[in-house]
Amino acid sequence: MSSLLIRGGTVVNADLSRRADVLVADGTIREVAPNLEASDKTETIDAGGCLVMPGGIDPHTHLEYPFMGTRTSEDFFTGTSAAVAGGTTMVIDFVIPDAGQSPIDAYSVWRARAEKSAADYGFHVAITWWDDSVREAMGTLVGELGINSFKHFMAYKGSIMVDDAVLIRSFERARELGALCLVHAENGDLVAHAQAALLGKGIKGPIGHALSRPPEVEAEAAHRAIRIAQVLGAPLYIVHNSCAQSLAALERARHEGQRVFAEVLAGHLLIDDSVYRSDSWDFAAAHVMSPPFRSREHQAALWRGLETGLLHTTATDHACFCAEQKRMGRDDFTLIPNGTGSIEDRMHVLWHHGVNAGRLTENEFVAVTSANAARIFNVYPRKGSVSVGADADIVVWDPQRERLISSKTHHQKVDINLFEGMVVRGVNVVTMSRGHVVFREGQLLTEVGAGQFVPRPPFAPVNASLQRKRMASALDEVT
Amino acid sequence: MSSLLIRGGTVVNADLSRRADVLVADGTIREVAPNLEASDKTETIDAGGCLVMPGGIDPHTHLEYPFMGTRTSEDFFTGTSAAVAGGTTMVIDFVIPDAGQSPIDAYSVWRARAEKSAADYGFHVAITWWDDSVREAMGTLVGELGINSFKHFMAYKGSIMVDDAVLIRSFERARELGALCLVHAENGDLVAHAQAALLGKGIKGPIGHALSRPPEVEAEAAHRAIRIAQVLGAPLYIVHNSCAQSLAALERARHEGQRVFAEVLAGHLLIDDSVYRSDSWDFAAAHVMSPPFRSREHQAALWRGLETGLLHTTATDHACFCAEQKRMGRDDFTLIPNGTGSIEDRMHVLWHHGVNAGRLTENEFVAVTSANAARIFNVYPRKGSVSVGADADIVVWDPQRERLISSKTHHQKVDINLFEGMVVRGVNVVTMSRGHVVFREGQLLTEVGAGQFVPRPPFAPVNASLQRKRMASALDEVT
Amino acid sequence: MSSLLIRGGTVVNADLSRRADVLVADGTIREVAPNLEASDKTETIDAGGCLVMPGGIDPHTHLEYPFMGTRTSEDFFTGTSAAVAGGTTMVIDFVIPDAGQSPIDAYSVWRARAEKSAADYGFHVAITWWDDSVREAMGTLVGELGINSFKHFMAYKGSIMVDDAVLIRSFERARELGALCLVHAENGDLVAHAQAALLGKGIKGPIGHALSRPPEVEAEAAHRAIRIAQVLGAPLYIVHNSCAQSLAALERARHEGQRVFAEVLAGHLLIDDSVYRSDSWDFAAAHVMSPPFRSREHQAALWRGLETGLLHTTATDHACFCAEQKRMGRDDFTLIPNGTGSIEDRMHVLWHHGVNAGRLTENEFVAVTSANAARIFNVYPRKGSVSVGADADIVVWDPQRERLISSKTHHQKVDINLFEGMVVRGVNVVTMSRGHVVFREGQLLTEVGAGQFVPRPPFAPVNASLQRKRMASALDEVT
Amino acid sequence: MSSLLIRGGTVVNADLSRRADVLVADGTIREVAPNLEASDKTETIDAGGCLVMPGGIDPHTHLEYPFMGTRTSEDFFTGTSAAVAGGTTMVIDFVIPDAGQSPIDAYSVWRARAEKSAADYGFHVAITWWDDSVREAMGTLVGELGINSFKHFMAYKGSIMVDDAVLIRSFERARELGALCLVHAENGDLVAHAQAALLGKGIKGPIGHALSRPPEVEAEAAHRAIRIAQVLGAPLYIVHNSCAQSLAALERARHEGQRVFAEVLAGHLLIDDSVYRSDSWDFAAAHVMSPPFRSREHQAALWRGLETGLLHTTATDHACFCAEQKRMGRDDFTLIPNGTGSIEDRMHVLWHHGVNAGRLTENEFVAVTSANAARIFNVYPRKGSVSVGADADIVVWDPQRERLISSKTHHQKVDINLFEGMVVRGVNVVTMSRGHVVFREGQLLTEVGAGQFVPRPPFAPVNASLQRKRMASALDEVT
Repeated sequence: MSSLLIRGGTVVNADLSRRADVLVADGTIREVAPNLEASDKTETIDAGGCLVMPGGIDPHTHLEYPFMGTRTSEDFFTGTSAAVAGGTTMVIDFVIPDAGQSPIDAYSVWRARAEKSAADYGFHVAITWWDDSVREAMGTLVGELGINSFKHFMAYKGSIMVDDAVLIRSFERARELGALCLVHAENGDLVAHAQAALLGKGIKGPIGHALSRPPEVEAEAAHRAIRIAQVLGAPLYIVHNSCAQSLAALERARHEGQRVFAEVLAGHLLIDDSVYRSDSWDFAAAHVMSPPFRSREHQAALWRGLETGLLHTTATDHACFCAEQKRMGRDDFTLIPNGTGSIEDRMHVLWHHGVNAGRLTENEFVAVTSANAARIFNVYPRKGSVSVGADADIVVWDPQRERLISSKTHHQKVDINLFEGMVVRGVNVVTMSRGHVVFREGQLLTEVGAGQFVPRPPFAPVNASLQRKRMASALDEVT
Repeated sequence: MSSLLIRGGTVVNADLSRRADVLVADGTIREVAPNLEASDKTETIDAGGCLVMPGGIDPHTHLEYPFMGTRTSEDFFTGTSAAVAGGTTMVIDFVIPDAGQSPIDAYSVWRARAEKSAADYGFHVAITWWDDSVREAMGTLVGELGINSFKHFMAYKGSIMVDDAVLIRSFERARELGALCLVHAENGDLVAHAQAALLGKGIKGPIGHALSRPPEVEAEAAHRAIRIAQVLGAPLYIVHNSCAQSLAALERARHEGQRVFAEVLAGHLLIDDSVYRSDSWDFAAAHVMSPPFRSREHQAALWRGLETGLLHTTATDHACFCAEQKRMGRDDFTLIPNGTGSIEDRMHVLWHHGVNAGRLTENEFVAVTSANAARIFNVYPRKGSVSVGADADIVVWDPQRERLISSKTHHQKVDINLFEGMVVRGVNVVTMSRGHVVFREGQLLTEVGAGQFVPRPPFAPVNASLQRKRMASALDEVT
Repeated sequence: MSSLLIRGGTVVNADLSRRADVLVADGTIREVAPNLEASDKTETIDAGGCLVMPGGIDPHTHLEYPFMGTRTSEDFFTGTSAAVAGGTTMVIDFVIPDAGQSPIDAYSVWRARAEKSAADYGFHVAITWWDDSVREAMGTLVGELGINSFKHFMAYKGSIMVDDAVLIRSFERARELGALCLVHAENGDLVAHAQAALLGKGIKGPIGHALSRPPEVEAEAAHRAIRIAQVLGAPLYIVHNSCAQSLAALERARHEGQRVFAEVLAGHLLIDDSVYRSDSWDFAAAHVMSPPFRSREHQAALWRGLETGLLHTTATDHACFCAEQKRMGRDDFTLIPNGTGSIEDRMHVLWHHGVNAGRLTENEFVAVTSANAARIFNVYPRKGSVSVGADADIVVWDPQRERLISSKTHHQKVDINLFEGMVVRGVNVVTMSRGHVVFREGQLLTEVGAGQFVPRPPFAPVNASLQRKRMASALDEVT
Repeated sequence: MSSLLIRGGTVVNADLSRRADVLVADGTIREVAPNLEASDKTETIDAGGCLVMPGGIDPHTHLEYPFMGTRTSEDFFTGTSAAVAGGTTMVIDFVIPDAGQSPIDAYSVWRARAEKSAADYGFHVAITWWDDSVREAMGTLVGELGINSFKHFMAYKGSIMVDDAVLIRSFERARELGALCLVHAENGDLVAHAQAALLGKGIKGPIGHALSRPPEVEAEAAHRAIRIAQVLGAPLYIVHNSCAQSLAALERARHEGQRVFAEVLAGHLLIDDSVYRSDSWDFAAAHVMSPPFRSREHQAALWRGLETGLLHTTATDHACFCAEQKRMGRDDFTLIPNGTGSIEDRMHVLWHHGVNAGRLTENEFVAVTSANAARIFNVYPRKGSVSVGADADIVVWDPQRERLISSKTHHQKVDINLFEGMVVRGVNVVTMSRGHVVFREGQLLTEVGAGQFVPRPPFAPVNASLQRKRMASALDEVT
């Protein structure tokens, strides 16, 4: 493969920024140093005035996901294409088995769907039911199939929700395997109760969705998962924290020395719950996702969580449905397919409202958009780092250029954009995926199937101390 | 009935101490004032140098309770007799229906058992299962049968434990009825998991009991109950808080403005978990109760909770089993009947370690031993107050006299005493139950059946504001 | 003196409400019981449908106070008259010696000024400088002159502010005397710095006042005073807490078991800082007080503090200046006399926004408007209680009657009302001061000099445990 | 200069561990990659089975410091020699002007003393008094003399302590210059009060030192400094946090989004206050330092702080005095020179009790012993990183080798060792300072004057966001 030199930019990693050129060949980074010489055959990209950063990792997407009687509108090709258009070069999607379905069978289904991806990808596997075969399957997934993380839904009662007994068994098994447990934290019983009560009172519109899932419902589940993990000595990752109360639970856990990782969605950082009071049913329904958007004080709390390191990663939970699909719940908000998307815009809104606003340094931006996810999900420094030996997943970022976000111009396959009309300063002029330029000056250059599955090994170093020490758990105390 | 004058003492109520005599007639207090004149027919009790206080209320007992294949050793007569020997003149016991049993039938069983009581009593009714008939029964119990509080076990999986779905339904029903919900907070799934794991490792002795129920297991459930109550806008009372982590959950709830009441047991304030490491199996097993005794820092935290008002009431969870009964679990700690007792000693140890040690004022002592319970369970000022019109449930307390606590001399019907060998200063020289002297100078003067059932009305004033205001709950927001 | 019977009402005390009549003679309460018979000579007040409550105690007023080059517009007669018009029957004002002035001389000056009071009063004495004579004077004030509380200003640099060295000496002396220390908590150095910086930037209007005293400035001082008191083992009372950050400091202290009492002003509960952005200089300046009014989230936090018992007392810091006086600071906000008033409206706004809004029970209303202050400042149950033997300082309160608050109709001697235009439901139809009807159906019936000085003894029972126990202080540890 | 190849080890940086060789030439690192080839002239160090890590940075030492009537026993040569013997290759010492002395003059004195250093060094400059010349000098120090941090003593009343007014001025000036403010947090007024009180009671021995400086005294000052920094929008670094209460203050600040950096001493992590109760006066006095050693629960809290990232750096406050010097305070603990040392042992005890005990990963070890300090004090990645272009300050660390710590064998110039008799596993077999092997297999190879002054520029990237954003400060709000 031909080589490529990114010249004249400032390389920004999570720990450091410095003036350096970057030489790429055969898909990986070969040199990072000032004033590199290019051979004749080397293509040159001028990064003068620009930052050269690791491509983003979106650790929470749902592409081509059959859910609530329909399927997310974005497939693995369109979704990863939109991603690279926005500077994100890897996604971690979710394999979600049906009740009774073998996790390995489900894994195969998702692997097949993902073949068409334009950029690299990995999978978390959801544990949606339990018996010994599931326990076995977890071992196979970790040992042979490149999986090191398992997801658990504490909501969606009657469907994919699991109870404490399953959480306990799965967390314990994951710990044994060196895998990380993820939870969607909402108390499904409280949600179901509130949904019925609201429908009973005649509340049928999208506002009912928000009212049925107040912050306390999320915080209860977050706290419960944390305590269960604490007792079992298992590391934990809580997806899409959306409210101050969840952050408080995280903070207590961290204070007690637990390894609890936490994610926030670009949408929750910037959108408030006034969307559900829109006169337009379609507009309100387009924002139906779980957890729902929150009142303003929560956005402030989430930003503070990012600033202080309480929140480690940013994601999108990209799960798009078009207006027609959303209308399945025209007469009953509980039937509106849950989900929104922002896979293309995450990096831009984080830079604009994070770095430009002075909340994050540029190094912290890299940490929360790629490096932390890479470390937690154990693909660092292959991903999440501009360093010798790493995959050449790179964005060249012009901090002065502006961009108008709109559904009219975005590459996402959905008819709405959460950030419609927002002008952001700081734009990726080039995105590179394993050495290929896949986006340049507004042009998508992606190919079907160019992306690869990235296997992720267990026992991530970020958890090394947890694995080494005798946990302060009741069970270990006597062994 | 003849009258009786308590002369020369200092009347101590929760709000105030003052020099006053107390005139009692026909079971109630007629006058509280300095220098009362006694008629010829009036018996006089000399309270010179003594304090005249409301008799204690123990809001958490299990007399004559069939549990874990046996029955608590103390019946309603022996138990209430031991109570008055220690200055406690009212107990609130628990009606605990079997799965499928009508709560009203169970209520009748307990009412019948309690007929022999020597002092006044009331009942909480446990909700151990759910269907519409239980919902109906709650209405009848509150409306017609003198019950204003319902108990829920979050532990004891496979037996009386209820899950979140039942908690939600019952809390909501109770709120509607103006009744108070109680929870035993321990995550039963985690306990069951830990029990199995410990037995699997060959841990079969009493230490296994403590190891299977670490503080996090309690705190998780406490927090969950608090959040559920918060979402539903229901007042909550958490029994036997035993650890710092539960207090932290309480503190957060109070800080957010919730009405959450909390109880602590005399035992948890003073006994630590070293008892489970005793060489004597019988001694260790005698201390098996749930939640278990905790390491020392928790006792400090509990005292601080009492001092700061975070904990409102003191109780005993008096549920006694003799050594022979405990031995049912000789080979498996999960079969040891759970329970201990201190119905006779609570007032003394609270005074000695609370007031003498400078942690509580004498007025606070009254608050945490009777007045607060009376207010929360809505029998104030009939109980919990030395004031005109109140029931003459009174102790005359000599703050200088000492007493040696021992199973050799106690009136409790059990072969062990938690506080064996402890010398306390501050002793009830007289206990009066509705005007009758039932204990005097060490002599029990109780009669079978002299105690009465005390019906307790719903909508306690302590919750008045909660009942009046539109709760900050999702459901109410739109109504 | 003739007797008087309040008939048909519900007597509301801090612990209890009950149907009862109240017989008053010679200035004190003689009987509280249902269905009292009145003799012929007894005047009768019909309280049917009304509540009979203790008159309010305002523990923080500045009547006739020479300050910042002028003098508060309200004298002891007009101030206490306005107070009784609003149901407040006792005030505790501040003796504030000049630098170098003997505290006892200052005390005499204030005693003389207060001779004309229409209702009862007491004094806190400020410690504004230090030498051995001040130490001596504290002993005399406590031992002979009816003082049990000392105030310290941590702000007003260059005038009455004292530094940590003085706080330490005074707190220690007060503890020894059984007196309570009060602090005005604002870091005077930070305020002075900010004032200079703002003036330097050309900010000269009232907004500068608010900007120069942000919440952190208050919270720092509150925390400092708390820690100093903690180290010395001295009880502490923090006046006019206005912000969430101060409450957080209080909460931590309470959690650690400290006896820290806390006050909130009626104004801070209801007014936000938008007043300083008014187009009217006079309107903005009228609201200049310290601490200033805060942004909205602080009001929510303060109410929560009252609901949860973190805040014990409500006061007014009544220190009125008319527009002409305020204009001394026309060109420099630091010269605007600091102070506002609400002595007449405190009870009404607390009832309306507290009880009617469901935040407080009626018993809690009594606690935070009189009983708690009476207990903390050790005049309970003489004040703050409708009980036999208490002073007949009583309000008959019609919970249904409405009242429009306005400077046009108020009795306060100032040309503005903080709550202008507010309609409140719940009005005192009668106010009684030591048995005299001083306000009835809107008519003031006060007499110059009818109020009396109320001496307050040291060693209040609320601090008894603190006084008894060996404090966890470094100094005591080794004695 | 000749080149040198470290071969066969695992390079451990703060973000990552990986197998790699390290080529060093002319004092800097030239290559970091697997399987590097050495030329003939290249010396080779075999690091098989070893870790190759950045040399430690000790950001808090007092070498050759004239204090309390004597001078620390360690000079810049002996001190930095002991440092490299323990794997520490850079120290940051303190320039401490006398009252009235020009900070620049003091700086010159310290620069001259440090000429003899065996390893690299920098300086913090203390602000011990204030006038316009000091303000000017701060500008010169930052602009021309390589200083980017200023220290403030909130204790040592009557000597180097500064009051809030000075803190405010200096913090504001430092913010303007892009410099970082450090504080020694103890309330000097409380200390002075307690010292006098203890001496007055006849407490004259070393225990008096501990009793006069309880945790609350430290936490008060920490909180005060934090709040002042918050109001001014200045970054802050708190040296030698020793107690749980200070960590709580830090945690609150971090939660509110402040940039507050925090340091802990090796000694405070491992030594408890029982040392002051020793029968040996010399032993007790040897441990007199400020803040003093604390009771056990504080050590647990400090470790938790390191684990959770609340504490960023580890240091020693190396300020040694021999027994003879300590005896100046034989009859009065306030005259015992304050200070202890552990410059040689910090890395070992951190590894043993941190990494071996499972509290820290090896990457976190690097973070807290060098990388974080390098980033905060803005010499990263020149120091604190094994990467191309960095200074070759490197340790080769054998995680299996053991070492007995003892004053008999240490290189520190003091007659006591805090960790006497402790056996640690994990030892530096080689220490390299800018490419020179200065310690190898137990042999010191240092040379007088080989160390260099490391100028540190202002506006560290870790504070970039703070510098960019409009601070939420009152003053900025209106500009």
